Amino acid sequence: KTSFVGQEIFYYPKTESTNLIAKNMAMDGAKEGTVVTAEEQTKGRGRLDRNWLSPAYKNILMSILFRPEVQPSQVFSLTMLTSLAVVKAIKTITTLNALIKWPNDIYIGSKKIGGILTEFSAEQDRVNFVIVGVGLNVNFDPSIYPEIKDTATSLSKVLGKEVSRIALLQSILEEIEKGYNLFKKGRVTQIRSEWNTHSLITGKTVRITSFGITEEGVAESVDEDGCLILLDYKGKRKRIFSGDVSLKIDVNHITK
Amino acid sequence: KTSFVGQEIFYYPKTESTNLIAKNMAMDGAKEGTVVTAEEQTKGRGRLDRNWLSPAYKNILMSILFRPEVQPSQVFSLTMLTSLAVVKAIKTITTLNALIKWPNDIYIGSKKIGGILTEFSAEQDRVNFVIVGVGLNVNFDPSIYPEIKDTATSLSKVLGKEVSRIALLQSILEEIEKGYNLFKKGRVTQIRSEWNTHSLITGKTVRITSFGITEEGVAESVDEDGCLILLDYKGKRKRIFSGDVSLKIDVNHITK
Repeated sequence: KTSFVGQEIFYYPKTESTNLIAKNMAMDGAKEGTVVTAEEQTKGRGRLDRNWLSPAYKNILMSILFRPEVQPSQVFSLTMLTSLAVVKAIKTITTLNALIKWPNDIYIGSKKIGGILTEFSAEQDRVNFVIVGVGLNVNFDPSIYPEIKDTATSLSKVLGKEVSRIALLQSILEEIEKGYNLFKKGRVTQIRSEWNTHSLITGKTVRITSFGITEEGVAESVDEDGCLILLDYKGKRKRIFSGDVSLKIDVNHITK
Repeated sequence: KTSFVGQEIFYYPKTESTNLIAKNMAMDGAKEGTVVTAEEQTKGRGRLDRNWLSPAYKNILMSILFRPEVQPSQVFSLTMLTSLAVVKAIKTITTLNALIKWPNDIYIGSKKIGGILTEFSAEQDRVNFVIVGVGLNVNFDPSIYPEIKDTATSLSKVLGKEVSRIALLQSILEEIEKGYNLFKKGRVTQIRSEWNTHSLITGKTVRITSFGITEEGVAESVDEDGCLILLDYKGKRKRIFSGDVSLKIDVNHITK
């Protein structure tokens, strides 16, 4: 049901990391839309080299190769459209409402169910390729892992039943293709505004810790470069790069 | 005479492209400062996939691996410090005054003698590695190549005698290390202001063609993101991304 995303899917029972495989394929000339999936990763990673825990045959682990004709500053749109695609596909397949926690996580309620890892290769003024990796907890039971049991969940855990990974993967790829077609038509504003309506933190009070300095304020929106616009208590707006922050969402605001 | 740049030099009589080799080494974990040199490239490239012509055993072809802790928008500083290093080394070894033509070319007079090709691998908010490639015409006679004889020159052609490639390479690596140490100390403003004093186009009238649209104005400076600040005839300042432009320098201004 897609015309280019996932027309070529490389499947690995076990591999180091789907992003790494996809990067190597990209360097060897693989086509836009190539998808790499695995059941298990020996070096699964999240953003900033954090470990990505995912037991075999339970979840979705995949990477998609894009070759957009854009500048490095425009790459965040691909993270946006992919996270949006994941949220929409979850809605379609399970009816659950997932939300996106800027910059790259997928949440249900106050728990994480997935993440996006975007990596790219570029020259000063143009991108060669972008790899967008998706890790999504589907039929996984995080409660048996002490290090994540309080912070992570999965679709099956929330639903109380297993979810078809194939149907979900198919739906995600379809949504990504739709989003990428919008992106190629330059309709980035549409993607961004839709992303903002699915944002976990928009309008909420957040605490941001960056190099030991903590800032608080209301998360207003995310701009076209992927920066968070934070309105602090003095009414001053700040533009925050994702790399600088960890978000501490005020639980009182989330749950109300 | 360097402490990390070029402590490991990989030398190839013939290879596809030093940037490609360096990228592969970087993905396999090679150390910052690793240098790849070749006598001949089968797939030598300039910016935007343009061909890079260089006969064997005549010129300098090399790539340096950096692992700076920066965001993608800061990568242009490495192109700046490398082009500055090349210009300074040329001055030291030959006494010739080379200039930098934004964004990435080295000129003597109105002819090109070299170029920089910066490529990098990144996540949204941090750089994994940067490869800076340098191609420099040293003892090459471009007059025998019809496609470049009117636009390119070399150090030996300007001087009327051959230049030691080893001495020049050594000097470039030393200057790169000095510049990179400044960069790591955050002294980007110093690098940029020095770069601007060695700029071929600063203060000159330039014509910029981008997607078929031509703009003219005075090149004022290059900002910290590597954008050219152009003052047009209406007194309006424009910020131009390198990817969008080709420069047509007004010959009357250059030669005066």
